[in-house]
Amino acid sequence: MENFVYSIPTEIYFGKGQIKNLVNIIKKYGSRVLIVYGGGSIKKIGVYDTIATMFNENNIPYTELSGVEPNPKLTSVKKGVELCRQFNADIVLSVGGGSTIDCGKVIAAGVAYDGDPWDLVINPKKIKEVLPVVSILTLAATGSEMDMMAVISNMDTNDKIGVGNINMRPVASILDPEYTYTVSKYQTAAGTADIMSHIIEAYFSNSKGYMQDRMAEGLLKTCIEFGVKAIEKPDDYEARANLMWTSSWAINGFLALGKPGAWSCHAIEHELSAYYDITHGVGLAMVTPHWMKRVLNDEHLDKFVEFGTNVWGIDSSLDKYEIANKAIEKTREYFISLGIPTTLREVGINEEKFDIMATKSSAKLSNAYCPLSKEDVLNIYKAAL
Amino acid sequence: MENFVYSIPTEIYFGKGQIKNLVNIIKKYGSRVLIVYGGGSIKKIGVYDTIATMFNENNIPYTELSGVEPNPKLTSVKKGVELCRQFNADIVLSVGGGSTIDCGKVIAAGVAYDGDPWDLVINPKKIKEVLPVVSILTLAATGSEMDMMAVISNMDTNDKIGVGNINMRPVASILDPEYTYTVSKYQTAAGTADIMSHIIEAYFSNSKGYMQDRMAEGLLKTCIEFGVKAIEKPDDYEARANLMWTSSWAINGFLALGKPGAWSCHAIEHELSAYYDITHGVGLAMVTPHWMKRVLNDEHLDKFVEFGTNVWGIDSSLDKYEIANKAIEKTREYFISLGIPTTLREVGINEEKFDIMATKSSAKLSNAYCPLSKEDVLNIYKAAL
Repeated sequence: MENFVYSIPTEIYFGKGQIKNLVNIIKKYGSRVLIVYGGGSIKKIGVYDTIATMFNENNIPYTELSGVEPNPKLTSVKKGVELCRQFNADIVLSVGGGSTIDCGKVIAAGVAYDGDPWDLVINPKKIKEVLPVVSILTLAATGSEMDMMAVISNMDTNDKIGVGNINMRPVASILDPEYTYTVSKYQTAAGTADIMSHIIEAYFSNSKGYMQDRMAEGLLKTCIEFGVKAIEKPDDYEARANLMWTSSWAINGFLALGKPGAWSCHAIEHELSAYYDITHGVGLAMVTPHWMKRVLNDEHLDKFVEFGTNVWGIDSSLDKYEIANKAIEKTREYFISLGIPTTLREVGINEEKFDIMATKSSAKLSNAYCPLSKEDVLNIYKAAL
Repeated sequence: MENFVYSIPTEIYFGKGQIKNLVNIIKKYGSRVLIVYGGGSIKKIGVYDTIATMFNENNIPYTELSGVEPNPKLTSVKKGVELCRQFNADIVLSVGGGSTIDCGKVIAAGVAYDGDPWDLVINPKKIKEVLPVVSILTLAATGSEMDMMAVISNMDTNDKIGVGNINMRPVASILDPEYTYTVSKYQTAAGTADIMSHIIEAYFSNSKGYMQDRMAEGLLKTCIEFGVKAIEKPDDYEARANLMWTSSWAINGFLALGKPGAWSCHAIEHELSAYYDITHGVGLAMVTPHWMKRVLNDEHLDKFVEFGTNVWGIDSSLDKYEIANKAIEKTREYFISLGIPTTLREVGINEEKFDIMATKSSAKLSNAYCPLSKEDVLNIYKAAL
């Protein structure tokens, strides 16, 4: 286990009706609010009205940025920064899924920066002051509600880049599983695949962390138990609650503390959603099993055996490669059982941009669990076709 | 999963040499330090000198309270409070194991209270201001380095009572596994039993928390993997590191969030160490298997099956009661393998005080996982004899 510093001060208000704490949370950290949200689903489920009523009754001034897209765009960030400045907002409230929260984080970082917010994304060292960010989560997937990262897409340059800063970690997040009852089967499946991928990225690392890996296996088992259940019965509270709390712990930093390592599948997938704007979790489900097949070798065999026996319950007396291959197959089958597309072809992707995507992603994979060349990534894309 | 609020802001500086951050930590939260420690082991391992040198070089004024006992006494708390007041200390630095940290916490709470600190222990609502507490951990066991609890013994009344307050949670803790290399085999074993008991108390609860339980199983497996290893090879860094980080997560509140429940074995054991001053973890190892045998019934059978298959790897195709009983037996055998006494007789306890101890502890067990009567507790003590 390597040295680390743990600091995850985000307060989580978890459960039914926890929005009752919103006014106190806002008053604790600010006074004038920019509300950031997406396509309007928060109006359908009533959260928007609840917030507006609470703010009006408590004389909390607010303005709003709506229409934040999945894979949030730099253009939305710029609009939000402008709105904050005009309104003199001192706190950002993101209401939605990971895209909305990510967008709110970079808005919060951009207000005090005198320049194009894209500068902060490509060079996080330029981030100095960050407005406090509060989130109300309506989709269990990215873990943005408890982590310090944001991913922003610049469609001018076809770049999709992750940026992290400790002050972008939300100061508080409200996690009410009932808000996810109306999440579609497709988005529930994609979210589950996203959560599982975060755990897998931390799990398959070259540094040792026995405790962290046992925790990771527990989180994976939770996804496996409840992903399909939430799809089959969207108002299954236990399923929604377990997925929601797991989404936060998959990526709040805990699993990777003491066992750092560069991520693999995210680098490979990011190019897909940067070029084709596909759903991030769906792209991960397509890529992950083929990445696993590529990196399975004698050096990594024991890790796959752990994964197979502890997560998938595969008989530990079998041959090691048999366990490993069964584990990869079970992972693939689970993604299929979620009902999302599992081949690139299904979402309209062909070989056209494989070369440039493989060039870009392999550049981030030289320090990965298993370092991958451009050729390796090309082959993974081809296998996923 | 029930509603909860998560807030664990303690910063953890984990790993070799992390004491280098001490001066910055102290300066962040205070200026005049009361150092609290026990019998002097911190002098043997060199931590005391390191701290004194760092404080002297950085002109940080400090005074000290030494000689804090295992099962820390109210008399030590009173001395510490007096020292803080005389010295005008504004921060408490506990260096040691759980007893030292617990003592430091109640000292920190007692300084601003105009009365006997015991009032705060029996009525935590009286706790208002608490000085910031920093800890340097030298024994993996109680988890006090990251939780809000303290247990104080009053030998005048034979009471050993736990007290909790959110402001008693350390603001920062330094966890250097190398500091635990010199912990004796006996204390390493008792610490491992203590950690396992904390996890078991949260695990066996009547409220549902699938994710939390899978995490608990991961932590139990970590203890099982590394407890004996640390005893056999005291300078096994991975073993010490895993036990140390697990000690914090066993009881920092995480496992019980969303699935609250009154603890059982701790209530039964606390009377043993209150009356006989035995090592807390040893008492827990004596009590736990007998408590399990008592509470195993049709209602709790499935939980024991989970425990048996997921923690101990028992074949899930066996009869449920067979799995449950094997799991209890494996738990008992593991405690025996740690090499600590596992019967009350071995530590000089006889039936003399069973009656009063059973009366006291059963009073705390009416809302437990399995509510226990005085007669039940008496039988557990007798079985553990």
